Order: sequence, then structure tokens, then C-alpha cells
Amino acid sequence: MSVIHAGETEGKGRGGRHPGGIVLGIDPGTTGMGYALLDRSTDPPAIRACGIIPTPVAASAADRLVAIADAIDELIAVHGPATLALERLYFNKNARTAMRVAEARGVALLCAARAGLAIAEYTPQEVKLSVTGTGSADKQQVMRMLGLVLALERPIAQDNVADAVAIALTHAQRSRLEAAVALAARRA
Amino acid sequence: MSVIHAGETEGKGRGGRHPGGIVLGIDPGTTGMGYALLDRSTDPPAIRACGIIPTPVAASAADRLVAIADAIDELIAVHGPATLALERLYFNKNARTAMRVAEARGVALLCAARAGLAIAEYTPQEVKLSVTGTGSADKQQVMRMLGLVLALERPIAQDNVADAVAIALTHAQRSRLEAAVALAARRA
Repeated sequence: MSVIHAGETEGKGRGGRHPGGIVLGIDPGTTGMGYALLDRSTDPPAIRACGIIPTPVAASAADRLVAIADAIDELIAVHGPATLALERLYFNKNARTAMRVAEARGVALLCAARAGLAIAEYTPQEVKLSVTGTGSADKQQVMRMLGLVLALERPIAQDNVADAVAIALTHAQRSRLEAAVALAARRA
Repeated sequence: MSVIHAGETEGKGRGGRHPGGIVLGIDPGTTGMGYALLDRSTDPPAIRACGIIPTPVAASAADRLVAIADAIDELIAVHGPATLALERLYFNKNARTAMRVAEARGVALLCAARAGLAIAEYTPQEVKLSVTGTGSADKQQVMRMLGLVLALERPIAQDNVADAVAIALTHAQRSRLEAAVALAARRA
């Protein structure tokens, strides 16, 4: 397996989950892509796997993208997520870095779309608001809230991984809220 | 075929060409990706196919990237190019546009690397210098020189296509020069 696992929890078997319960959250960076597979069929949602897809600086841009695509294809094949959740494009960073991240983002979108996943995009503010209750939370607040909401035994140490978990959780919370609203509307 | 052909020339059969003689040049844009397949085994090099891979603005980013990847995969399968030639990352355009182009660029690099193609990158200045003899040439000069150098019966009308042909020609000229220098060095 070409991914480094920061943590992995054994699944409880597919029987207990509703289909499409898994969200793949990713956070593309320049030296690695954080990922998280979050099972939203449990309460609280359970991290099935998370970690970093390493993208060594020494490799060519093309080799780096192949490593990312191979790893995402494998994560999708193994865990069967229904949705890819990732941050909307942002524009305020170093231009060269932003372009490299956009290349990786394009590859991730391609892998997900070819495998039939839905795509969900959220702004950084939406993620912070959803996870912590405030759109201006800092990284430490986000990490602390992830630990509380997901009842983690240990905090997530790596930024990219925490961001990937946060965006997957944002989608899990949003889709649960939307389902509840739709159910209430049908009953009204 | 999911690509619009601006022009296509029937190949002369694989027998007459040395293996790896074909260069795939691409020019990713926001509404379409220009491509050109240039056979550098003839003198002048011959355009085997060129055109636009359309990427409709209405489609989602992911669907747009799938269309690009499918078309590039097909062009590689049909024409068997040895090298993908494209412009180096540039940073001076509108940020949102640049990011969308970078996503498409990432997908193109992935398709090429997975198919085992070599990757060749040139700056816009290198392309202009190689095609016209001056790094400050304008689009009209580039198009005129393409017509002359490649002995085209009709000029190439679309910007993206002309840029794709120009970058493929740049690689053809560079690699021919490098081969000649290497041969001379062996003889010396």
C-alpha cells in the first residue's frame, strides 16, 4: 500500500452500515495529501482510516501525481466511499504552491468522478464553522473539537490529516442535517 | 471520439516511422484543451491530428476533468506518442482561471505518466524562440511561422490548437538538435 496510515480502525463489517455511509475527505498539500475515511452511519461518525499520501519533493510533478492517483484509487477500492469531500479552490497562497496543489486536486477529482463518487466542496470557513461552531477558529481549536466530537483517544497530530478529517466531518454533519430536514418536510 | 478535430492527416503507416516519433503537444485552457500530434520522423514534421478537447463551462469541474482524461487516454491509445510536451506552470493570469488550468494540467500529466510517456516542459519564451527565432514574437507571428515550417496548406485558426502545435514543434526541434549534437560528439 502506497499510503502512510496515521491511524486505522477495523470496520464493524458492512452489514451494520447503510450503503454510501463513508466519506473520503482529502487535504492536498505540497509535500503530502492528507486523507480520512469517515463512516457517518455511526454516532459519532467513526474514522475508518486516515493518514498521508506522501508526495516526495524529489519526484517529478508527473510521478507525484501518479502516486496520488494510485493511492486514491486504492483507498476508494478498499473502503468504497460514496462521496469525496474537499476544500473549494483557494487563491491566497504562494502562486507556485497553489498551482501544484491545484494539479493534485484535479487528479483527486478525476479519480473520484471516474469511480462514481459524489463531490462535495466546502470553504475553509464552512469547515471551521461546522466543526467548532465559529468560522474564525484556529487550527488548535479545530483539532481539539475533532477529538471531542469524534471521541478520539488520541488527538490527530498532522495538519493535513486533521484537515482531511475536518472536511469529511463537515460533509457528514451537513448531509445528516439535510436528511433530517428532508424527513421533517415529508412529515409536515 | 470525444474530441473535436480541427484537422487530421492520414498516417503513412507505422513502418516508415521510427518508434517514439510522435509528440503530443497540449495547451490547457478554461473552455477547451488544444492538442496536436506531431510526427517528428518526417522533415518537416507532420501534424497527424490536432484539435480541441471541449470542456463545457456548464459541466462540473470533475466532469470536465473526466472529459479531458478520457480524450487524452484515447489520443495516446490511437496515436502512441512517446512524449507529452506542455508549457511550464505560469502564474501571471487570473487566479481562478490559473487554478482551473492547473487542475487540467495535473490530469494531463497523470494520463501521460501512467501511459509511460516522457514529459517535456517549455516556457512560453522558449516556444516563441524555437518557432519564430525570437522570444518576444506575438501570436500572429507564431501562427505564420507554424504554417511555413510545417508547410501547412491552411493556417491553424484556433489559439489553443496553434499553441499545442507550437509546443510539440518546439520539442521536435529541441530533440532533433540534441540528437545531432550527441551524434557529433560521438564522431568527434
